[in-house]
Amino acid sequence: MSAPVYILGGCQTDFARNWLKEGKDIVTMLQEAVSGGLTATGIEAHEVEVAHVGNFAAELYCKQGHLGGFLAEIDPAFSGIPTSRHEAACASGSVAMMMAAAEIEAGRYDLALIVGVEQMKTVDPATGGDFLGTAAWYEKEAKGVEFPFPKLFGRLGDEYEKRFGLKEEHLARIAEINFSNARRNPQAQTRGWFTDETQNLSSGKYANPVAGRLRVRDCSQVTDGATSLLLASDTFARQYAARRGLTVEQLPRILGWGHRTAPMKFDTKMAESKNSPYILPHTRQAIVDTFRRAALPDVWSVQGIETHDCFTTSEYMAIDHFGLTKPGESWKVIEEGVIEFGGKLPINASGGLIGCGHPVGATGTRQALDAFKQVTGQAGEYQIEGTKKIATLNIGGSGTTTVAMVIGV
Amino acid sequence: MSAPVYILGGCQTDFARNWLKEGKDIVTMLQEAVSGGLTATGIEAHEVEVAHVGNFAAELYCKQGHLGGFLAEIDPAFSGIPTSRHEAACASGSVAMMMAAAEIEAGRYDLALIVGVEQMKTVDPATGGDFLGTAAWYEKEAKGVEFPFPKLFGRLGDEYEKRFGLKEEHLARIAEINFSNARRNPQAQTRGWFTDETQNLSSGKYANPVAGRLRVRDCSQVTDGATSLLLASDTFARQYAARRGLTVEQLPRILGWGHRTAPMKFDTKMAESKNSPYILPHTRQAIVDTFRRAALPDVWSVQGIETHDCFTTSEYMAIDHFGLTKPGESWKVIEEGVIEFGGKLPINASGGLIGCGHPVGATGTRQALDAFKQVTGQAGEYQIEGTKKIATLNIGGSGTTTVAMVIGV
Repeated sequence: MSAPVYILGGCQTDFARNWLKEGKDIVTMLQEAVSGGLTATGIEAHEVEVAHVGNFAAELYCKQGHLGGFLAEIDPAFSGIPTSRHEAACASGSVAMMMAAAEIEAGRYDLALIVGVEQMKTVDPATGGDFLGTAAWYEKEAKGVEFPFPKLFGRLGDEYEKRFGLKEEHLARIAEINFSNARRNPQAQTRGWFTDETQNLSSGKYANPVAGRLRVRDCSQVTDGATSLLLASDTFARQYAARRGLTVEQLPRILGWGHRTAPMKFDTKMAESKNSPYILPHTRQAIVDTFRRAALPDVWSVQGIETHDCFTTSEYMAIDHFGLTKPGESWKVIEEGVIEFGGKLPINASGGLIGCGHPVGATGTRQALDAFKQVTGQAGEYQIEGTKKIATLNIGGSGTTTVAMVIGV
Repeated sequence: MSAPVYILGGCQTDFARNWLKEGKDIVTMLQEAVSGGLTATGIEAHEVEVAHVGNFAAELYCKQGHLGGFLAEIDPAFSGIPTSRHEAACASGSVAMMMAAAEIEAGRYDLALIVGVEQMKTVDPATGGDFLGTAAWYEKEAKGVEFPFPKLFGRLGDEYEKRFGLKEEHLARIAEINFSNARRNPQAQTRGWFTDETQNLSSGKYANPVAGRLRVRDCSQVTDGATSLLLASDTFARQYAARRGLTVEQLPRILGWGHRTAPMKFDTKMAESKNSPYILPHTRQAIVDTFRRAALPDVWSVQGIETHDCFTTSEYMAIDHFGLTKPGESWKVIEEGVIEFGGKLPINASGGLIGCGHPVGATGTRQALDAFKQVTGQAGEYQIEGTKKIATLNIGGSGTTTVAMVIGV
């Protein structure tokens, strides 16, 4: 990193909420995430110098664009600060963080507010599935297709089966772990869905097929939610640390990051990677870039991972792409219990996109906030003991845009 | 500027084209703008390290999000480079430039590709007007309103009338100059619309009322178009200059910029500015920031302006906000011929949004490309003689997001 970028904290809305049913809109959601983030960090609105919004498709779900324009409506203290909205499908939140960090690294600003946001429960499931199709090549991969994304990530599973072999039990175990973890997270969407950890996952509605090899339990949720973050330069972080009776070294930073984009079409991706050891080589490269920038030798240098698990197949992919196993051998660490809460390298202690929820534009910022909570010992019931560093992996489209980070002290 | 950011050139598509009628989509539009930009600059695709897309609402107009994912579909040489899409309504193109520049200033990359793009002629005018309403607070300012933006910018004229007085003849003259200038621009949408400069502007369909005080002639066009730009660090720019037999000092740079966001609602803006000398004080501040960063004393240090003229009232506002006159006295320089082609400080030699066209997400990049052409003596028939520096002003929403720049040598 050319200049350090600190994470001072933030706020996640309760992902179990349905904002339309509460009579609230995306502007209210922005407002609650922002005011919650200011409260959590003890920062005053007038200290914020710039704001970035991560959002996938409020135009479709909420008939509203130009979300950056709402900051000054939320709080007059924001009037005049520069704002913008950033989008890379399900990686929109991370891309917003990347842009905020770039402006801090460039020396433009010392304190940035980032909000990832998505209100999705405004439409029926079929319409929502169709809207999500615009994260793929809509005309070629989604138009007229029922639930295009489960199909695409089912095909990711098919590709694993073809190249390395893949057993359904390992995907089911990924789902089980995420749902189980979510029960410890007081802001997870599914925290109250099961009376015991495994109920209904292997039979009943959660085992019903959705598309291709994927069942209901393999899919992340349709979620309303927002997550705010405050990012700071070294100058602001030092003042802030002093205010809180801390040293700047105690504040978490973005220690490394990777950002790569593959071709849009899943077919193009698979054709391109056919001779690569990795099914999504650009996702692998983003992870390699991240650890190189963080000057860390490998994934075992972090104490936990918050990964994209829009489907169980994407987490299965993340496991070998992070280097927990050789390519195609993700099943080994699943069987060994490595990725479970309490395991050697827990994945998605939060519950991930399957258990915690997946408000598309807020997922990257939610991952970063959970990383912040873990490395500052504020994750409560889902705290991983002795955590200094957490890796995140946020993916847009069918493996198209990847942003990875290592956050820690 | 913390580190210099150079503009190496780019490509504008012909804004008179209707891509749907040609059987082409937004991906083809991206492709033509990108390949044209590479040809124009002599840069190879494999040299590009990062790409940024500026786009307002392809989700609505084209049922497509995640536009950054198309780069690697356009040219396999882009596979793996980081991409993202940026949005701030009609200022989306400038915001994409701002983010690309931040990453270069931060030392992340040496060569960035930016594409501003919008395909708008996919829907009927009423639907298009409704889509544009999502650049304002849709629920409060646009829902159920026919052509919300002409109404909002009509109100900007009303506010001028109330505070300072405003004569229709001055707005009409702004329209006339823009249409007249567009006739010299071989890529302007309206270049062939009139057989002489004034025909039909004061009578006939161009004088028909649209909303409030605004007539057809006062409105920018519905346009399909894209503009690419190549932005470079000092390191790349020096190599590039050497290749072209130039010195780096001969390459245009972003000499200064300003980026400010006002409250979304027009009512909130007007209430906030009621005691300010300027009707849009944050737009004024973005301009002041720009000239301060460029270390230039005032607007008379540039030889031309490319301004946002989504409506004649926004150009009328730009004139006093740039400081060509005292607040409320824009009419003076209109009457004196200052802003005409050949005048002391020509505005929109390109024809602007009224004459050249307004493909929303491409307007900021188009302004920057026209600034590049002017300061490198490549503007052909619409070349302003002896130009070293051009100021740009790009606005999203009803004066909500403002990005201004000075581009030059």
